[in-house]
Amino acid sequence: VTLSTDLGAAYAAQMKAVLAHRLPPGTVVDLAHDLPPHGVREAGFVVRAMAERFPAGSVHVVVVDPGVGGRRASVVVACRDGSVLVGPDNGVLAPLAEALGGGRAYRLDPARLASSPRVGTTFDGRDVFAPAAALLASGVRPSRLGSPTEIIRASAPPPQREAHGARGSVAHVDRFGNLVTNVPTDWLPHDVAVLQVRIGARNLRLPLVRSYEARATGRFAVLGSSFGSLEVARVQGRAADRLGAGVGTSVRFAWSARPARRKRK
Amino acid sequence: VTLSTDLGAAYAAQMKAVLAHRLPPGTVVDLAHDLPPHGVREAGFVVRAMAERFPAGSVHVVVVDPGVGGRRASVVVACRDGSVLVGPDNGVLAPLAEALGGGRAYRLDPARLASSPRVGTTFDGRDVFAPAAALLASGVRPSRLGSPTEIIRASAPPPQREAHGARGSVAHVDRFGNLVTNVPTDWLPHDVAVLQVRIGARNLRLPLVRSYEARATGRFAVLGSSFGSLEVARVQGRAADRLGAGVGTSVRFAWSARPARRKRK
Amino acid sequence: VTLSTDLGAAYAAQMKAVLAHRLPPGTVVDLAHDLPPHGVREAGFVVRAMAERFPAGSVHVVVVDPGVGGRRASVVVACRDGSVLVGPDNGVLAPLAEALGGGRAYRLDPARLASSPRVGTTFDGRDVFAPAAALLASGVRPSRLGSPTEIIRASAPPPQREAHGARGSVAHVDRFGNLVTNVPTDWLPHDVAVLQVRIGARNLRLPLVRSYEARATGRFAVLGSSFGSLEVARVQGRAADRLGAGVGTSVRFAWSARPARRKRK
Repeated sequence: VTLSTDLGAAYAAQMKAVLAHRLPPGTVVDLAHDLPPHGVREAGFVVRAMAERFPAGSVHVVVVDPGVGGRRASVVVACRDGSVLVGPDNGVLAPLAEALGGGRAYRLDPARLASSPRVGTTFDGRDVFAPAAALLASGVRPSRLGSPTEIIRASAPPPQREAHGARGSVAHVDRFGNLVTNVPTDWLPHDVAVLQVRIGARNLRLPLVRSYEARATGRFAVLGSSFGSLEVARVQGRAADRLGAGVGTSVRFAWSARPARRKRK
Repeated sequence: VTLSTDLGAAYAAQMKAVLAHRLPPGTVVDLAHDLPPHGVREAGFVVRAMAERFPAGSVHVVVVDPGVGGRRASVVVACRDGSVLVGPDNGVLAPLAEALGGGRAYRLDPARLASSPRVGTTFDGRDVFAPAAALLASGVRPSRLGSPTEIIRASAPPPQREAHGARGSVAHVDRFGNLVTNVPTDWLPHDVAVLQVRIGARNLRLPLVRSYEARATGRFAVLGSSFGSLEVARVQGRAADRLGAGVGTSVRFAWSARPARRKRK
Repeated sequence: VTLSTDLGAAYAAQMKAVLAHRLPPGTVVDLAHDLPPHGVREAGFVVRAMAERFPAGSVHVVVVDPGVGGRRASVVVACRDGSVLVGPDNGVLAPLAEALGGGRAYRLDPARLASSPRVGTTFDGRDVFAPAAALLASGVRPSRLGSPTEIIRASAPPPQREAHGARGSVAHVDRFGNLVTNVPTDWLPHDVAVLQVRIGARNLRLPLVRSYEARATGRFAVLGSSFGSLEVARVQGRAADRLGAGVGTSVRFAWSARPARRKRK
C-alpha cells in the first residue's frame, strides 16, 4: 500500500493508524505527503511517476482532495496489472490509471466499509480511503466495494505535436526548481542538438544535454527528465525562479536536426 | 513503534538506527518529524490525534523536548489499552495518555537501559527514549524501567462551555492554514446552522458546513475538524494568514438554533 | 536498506518502486530526502551521523549528486563491518565509509545490473543505485558489481588542534538553527568551563553547558552536539540566523582550564 497525499504528516499519520489495524508491519510505503495543496493536476502528474513502477498488485492511495465532503465521488480503479488505485474522483488518479493500462472503476460505497464512526466530514483519507485500502490489500475484490463507473480524466490539455516541434506546459516544478514539462522525451528526433524554447514570454535557444555538468553553472539547458518528458533546467540554479515560470506555464519547443558535420564529433 | 518528533530527518535517523538493532524490519512508523520546534503544547494536541487510533499495544515515542539535558524527567506511560508512551515529562504526552484512558507512569531510569555510551547530553531521543522503546516493544514491562510517578499535565487552559456557546483557543494550524481549535465538535447542538465567531480581535458570522465545497472560494466557514474539534477554514485559502491568527489565539463561538422553517429544506 | 537523498519525495518514491520489486516489505528505511540540494559536503557530514549506528550489514544508499549523467563514477563501498555504501563518487560517501572502518571500493558498472531501460540520463538514484542496492541487499557481493577503485575523499579541510584550542568550520545547521561544527567534542579537556569562540567575524565568550536549559532564553552557549562535535547554540532561538553563520563559516575555539576553586562546586 502506497500513500501519496497533500495532507502533511499530521493527517497522514491518522491514515496510517487505520491501516495498521489490518495490515502487517512494513506494508505501508510513504511516497509523499507534501504534494502541492489542492494541486490536483500537478499531483496527478507526479503520482503517476512515483507509483507506476511499483510491483503489480500494489494498492495506491492518493489524497489530493479539495472537494472532500462535497459531491465528488470516491473511486477504486482495478488496473490491468492487478494494481488498485483508491482516491477521490477528481482527475488525480487518471494519469496513473492510464500508465498502468487502464482498468475498471467502481464508485466507492462507504456503507460497504466496516469502518469506525466518522469524527468529521472532511477526511475521507482516514474515514473512507484507508479502510478501503486495508480491505483491498487483504484480498477483497474492488467490485465488492461499489458499483461500476467511469473516472474523471484530468482536464489539462494534452501536449501537441507540431511540425519540427511540440507545445505543452509545465506539469511540475521539482525540488531543484527544474521545470518538468508534459512533452514526451521520445517525441524528439534522435539527431536534435539544439532547441528553440518559448516558455511563458521568454525565448531561449538551448542545447539538449545528457547531464547538468555539460553546461556551466547558471546556464539553461533542456534534458530528458526522470518523468519521461522534457525538462528545462538551470545548472546549479532554479530555472523556475529565474524564468518566472511555474505549473501551467505554456511551453513550445522547436527543433532542427543536428548538422551532419557535428555528428562526427 | 511510532515516532513523533520536532527533530527533522537527520536526528530522527539516529533514533531509527538504535531501534533497528532490536526490532524487526517495518516495525517503526514515522508519524511526523516536523512538529513545531519546541512547541510542546501544539505537539501534544497533534500527537494525540496522530497516535490515538493505532492498535492497542503500540509503543509511541514522542520527542519535543526543549528541556533535554536539564532537570525534566523522562517517562514511560503504560496506558489502559496496553499501549505505551515514551518521552520527556513536559506535558507533551498528557493529551494522548488521556485519550487512551490514562494509566500508570514511571520515571525512566537511564541506568536500567543497556544502552550504548552517550555522545552528547542533548539527545535523549536517541540515547534514552529509543533504547527504552526497543525494550518495551520487545516485551519488557514498563515497570521494569523506572519507579512510579505522575506525569505533568499540559498547562493549556481547557475549553469552556458557555450558555449557547463555548470559548477556547487555536490548538493547531494545519498544512492548509486551517485553524483547528480545542472546542469539541460534539459540544455543538445538532440544529446549529450559523455561528458567531470571535477569533482574536475579529468578529465573523459563519455557517457551519460539512464540506469546503459548500462555500465559494475565499469565504470562511466553520467545520468539524479531523481532530474532533471545531475548525475555522477559508475555502481554497489560508485562514491563519488571512485572519492573523495562530496557535494560542483565543476563540469564542456563539450559536443559536437553526430556525424551524429551514429544517424542512 | 537506508535512503539518504536531496531529491525530495517525488524522486525518492521512484527509487522505492525499484527496490520494492526485490526486497520484502519494511526493508527500506527513509533517513532523509531533504538534504541540502547539491550540498555534497554538508550531506557527507550528516549522512555519517544518520547511518553509522545502523546494524552491521546494512546497505546505505546516498544520492546527493549534482554531477549525475557526467563523468563522475558510481561506487559501491564494502565496509569492514559488512555494511555496504552505494552512491556517486563525489566525496559524499567518504565520512561514513571512514566511520565504518573503511573498506574496499568498486566502480559500479551499470552493465552488470539487470536493470530496466533508462528513461532519462539524470537519475542514477533510480536507474543505477537502487537496482544495485536491491542486488546487494539480496546477497550479491560488491565485487560482482564492478572493478576495484579508490573513492574520492571530501575536500573539506579537516579541523586542526591548536595550543589550548582548535579551529574548524560549521559542518551543518540543524532544524533548530544550531551551528554544528566539525571540531570533535573529545578534543576538549575535561576541566573546561568557558570557551572563547570566534565564528566568522564574531567573538563570543561562551560557557560549555550540558543542557539548553542551563542558559536563559536568547543566550548563546557551546554544547557537545549529537554529531560528536562541538555546537554553538542559542537557547530557544536560531544561532545561525542571529550570528549570520552557515555551513562553511570558520570557527575557532580557545579554552582555558576551569579554575581549581570552581571544581569544588
